[in-house]
Amino acid sequence: MRSSFIKRLEKLKNKAGELLNRTFDQHINLAVTGLSRSGKTAFITSLVNQLINEGNGSKLSFFDPVHHGNFIAAKRVAQKNLSIPRFDYDNAMASLTGESPQWPEPTHGISELRLAIRYQPKNSLLKYAADMATLTLDITDYPGEWLLDLPMLKQTYEQWSEQTQALLTTKPRDEYAKAFLAKVGNIDPFAVADEELLAELAREYTELLHTFRYKLGLSVIQPGRFILPAELAGAPILEFFPFPNLTTIDGNDYQNASDDSFIGMLRARFLEYKEQVVKKFYRQHFLRFDRQIVLADCLTPLNACSINSGPESFADLQLAIDMILESYSYGKSGLFSRLFSPRIDKLLFAATKADHVTSEQHAPMVSLLNQLIYKSKHSLNFEAVEMKTLAIAAVKSTNSGKSFHEGQQVSVIQGYTVKNAVENKENTVEKITLFPGSVPDKLPEKEFWQQCAFNFVNFSPMSGMTKHQSLPHIRMDQVLQFLLADKMI
Amino acid sequence: MRSSFIKRLEKLKNKAGELLNRTFDQHINLAVTGLSRSGKTAFITSLVNQLINEGNGSKLSFFDPVHHGNFIAAKRVAQKNLSIPRFDYDNAMASLTGESPQWPEPTHGISELRLAIRYQPKNSLLKYAADMATLTLDITDYPGEWLLDLPMLKQTYEQWSEQTQALLTTKPRDEYAKAFLAKVGNIDPFAVADEELLAELAREYTELLHTFRYKLGLSVIQPGRFILPAELAGAPILEFFPFPNLTTIDGNDYQNASDDSFIGMLRARFLEYKEQVVKKFYRQHFLRFDRQIVLADCLTPLNACSINSGPESFADLQLAIDMILESYSYGKSGLFSRLFSPRIDKLLFAATKADHVTSEQHAPMVSLLNQLIYKSKHSLNFEAVEMKTLAIAAVKSTNSGKSFHEGQQVSVIQGYTVKNAVENKENTVEKITLFPGSVPDKLPEKEFWQQCAFNFVNFSPMSGMTKHQSLPHIRMDQVLQFLLADKMI
Repeated sequence: MRSSFIKRLEKLKNKAGELLNRTFDQHINLAVTGLSRSGKTAFITSLVNQLINEGNGSKLSFFDPVHHGNFIAAKRVAQKNLSIPRFDYDNAMASLTGESPQWPEPTHGISELRLAIRYQPKNSLLKYAADMATLTLDITDYPGEWLLDLPMLKQTYEQWSEQTQALLTTKPRDEYAKAFLAKVGNIDPFAVADEELLAELAREYTELLHTFRYKLGLSVIQPGRFILPAELAGAPILEFFPFPNLTTIDGNDYQNASDDSFIGMLRARFLEYKEQVVKKFYRQHFLRFDRQIVLADCLTPLNACSINSGPESFADLQLAIDMILESYSYGKSGLFSRLFSPRIDKLLFAATKADHVTSEQHAPMVSLLNQLIYKSKHSLNFEAVEMKTLAIAAVKSTNSGKSFHEGQQVSVIQGYTVKNAVENKENTVEKITLFPGSVPDKLPEKEFWQQCAFNFVNFSPMSGMTKHQSLPHIRMDQVLQFLLADKMI
Repeated sequence: MRSSFIKRLEKLKNKAGELLNRTFDQHINLAVTGLSRSGKTAFITSLVNQLINEGNGSKLSFFDPVHHGNFIAAKRVAQKNLSIPRFDYDNAMASLTGESPQWPEPTHGISELRLAIRYQPKNSLLKYAADMATLTLDITDYPGEWLLDLPMLKQTYEQWSEQTQALLTTKPRDEYAKAFLAKVGNIDPFAVADEELLAELAREYTELLHTFRYKLGLSVIQPGRFILPAELAGAPILEFFPFPNLTTIDGNDYQNASDDSFIGMLRARFLEYKEQVVKKFYRQHFLRFDRQIVLADCLTPLNACSINSGPESFADLQLAIDMILESYSYGKSGLFSRLFSPRIDKLLFAATKADHVTSEQHAPMVSLLNQLIYKSKHSLNFEAVEMKTLAIAAVKSTNSGKSFHEGQQVSVIQGYTVKNAVENKENTVEKITLFPGSVPDKLPEKEFWQQCAFNFVNFSPMSGMTKHQSLPHIRMDQVLQFLLADKMI
């Protein structure tokens, strides 16, 4: 009798659990972004890896659901939006765990991955009914460059041209942009447009953007889609550029310029770009996101003193971060509140590559990042978006230790770096030990750049990592705690 | 007094002309398609070239507006849809007219180009008022493979799987598809789907499609977007494949298969593909077209006897042409008439590469093409779509002449062909003279394939062509006459 009663009770409990699960199951749309080469692919790979390999050598002590033992398991499940490329986790893991480990191939557009995370509810309503609940986590990866376009929505083509001209005529962009600006300056803005000339100048402008990003390490790249065109490659919507000295033209003449004139055509394409590219991204994707992590590599610009453009690179990163954060400060500005109803409730700013400096430098890294986002953070707090900054390494590529230097014990890191390839021979890795220098804890001043004492080296991933074990990391547990833990109680 | 009167009259006439021009100006949306490697890029390049270089060495005697002298000039103008890549005419011309002339790079998706054609109206209403009218010609280039997907709209996933399985288990596809079908056959269709396995099998199926198209020269490639994925590369919507022996499964079980089972997921992706890829193309592009030219290379399949799959390659081309023509036979079938309101009024079928055979073979080429499209042509005539077939060469790459062979005078062609590259050396071209054989004037029978007497050689473009002269061609004037002349009277 008793056993049958217990069975029936269990059955009822299970049934109630199932029912409640369906009602109470949680869902997070997590967006991951960062300027290109900030480490988005490694970050998402590690985040997925930490969750699906939990319990297999992982250290997630600051992630409460693991620490308190109510995390059960996570697995990849099929994403909902079938037209968006799937984030290629397997390929990324294969790169990291191969015989000669490599950083994974960067992504070039938007991609998605969905995880189902099973947990035992402890403190929530659910615990009375269910033994198990599911948090569905949709991770979307998209280029930070796309957010740099947002401010364009508030600008006319005239205003955008003026602002971009100002950028192009100051250090370090000026010497590269001179020839381009001269060519554009020779065009009569009211003449009938030659489409081939427009296409050619747009190609030159796009090449300039590539130079700024990949040669000078600058961050403000606008329009962002120009360097990551995907299916729009070769379309006229990506064939415009700023027209210098528009403000010297009579306003009426500008307004009345015919649609087939140079200026009329540039203006039309600028407007179409805002409508079909910028707004479309916000409408189709951005509005769905609940939580956002922005990755920033602050170390590479600190290194730029060697190419004599340190202060400018750094100022550029600051400007880019301001521009990116504008996407989250809706509510204040009329335009954005009408376009985008606010939804993101948590925003994490992570300084990546923390493993590339010694551990006592992590505090200055965070404080530097805080200074970089200070202005925007201030305005965001008013909007009830919870913010946090962290210094992290998604996949740790160094070990830390102590070494003696001129009689003093100093902290050092040790890792593998790619040796310059000798002709016709494959790249080999070399083990090096170094103290990369101190990270300034506030926006670096003149002396920092004069000393040029920061020696940041790009490390390769460590060897010996395997697919079914957790990747070594720095503070990924705190990332998970901030982004997910409150939905798993 | 008189002169002032005349001036006023002229002015009035001009004004009236301008007004009427705006009202009477003509517009054609011309779509160009063909299976990949049928010569779409060379065709559009030549079409544009003939029109913009008219009067500069061109021979367009069968194009009435030129023959009667009321063609004035044509020029490229800016296209209207800014989000579609522009057809790269300049690059294609650069390839054809370079020091070692090359066929232009093939296009991989959709592209556009707009021409404004000025002419003097002779017989129309316009002639009383206007000295000049404009025909705007929008040329859209898209892969013929996309049309092969249309029949899928009428099919369920079950039906499509069955039909595709039939293809995959007959010659010449069977020996390549065996391993793939065996792997899929091992899957329990009702088990929870493993997304990675789905992705892997979809990759294998896509590789098979590549083999069929580029190694075996087959034409029926379905789903067509798999081999030209563009922005959908890596998206789950392109990760499905036919499931063999579905008909042996109980219908109820199939209907009730859960969404996360193998069969449920494949079915969902198939449905989404029809909705988001196939229908979207028809809605966004196909419905706009007024006139269509379909290019077909009938010579390459005739050559396939050398790889022992001649009859099958040819039957496959015939099937592909049937499938493509289904897109134009709306009105009969309930589904298509609801989806697509008929608009195309002229359809030109062109057998390309007519310069690769001697001129007396052009008549059999046309008659062979007519046989290939016979079935569909019959049903199309009822729909009042005007149809024509032509043997053309968009860019002529050979000269024809006579030669003596075993005491007989025979027709030959002479052109340049790429010599097999010797290791570490650049390709060189070689001048050859040959009689490639007779084109059968009806669907080739057993004897044709047994004789294997057709020797079709790929020629390189001739050297000495220049940008500002018309390209040599065969019957491009008749193409223009059929597609444009009635709108220029």
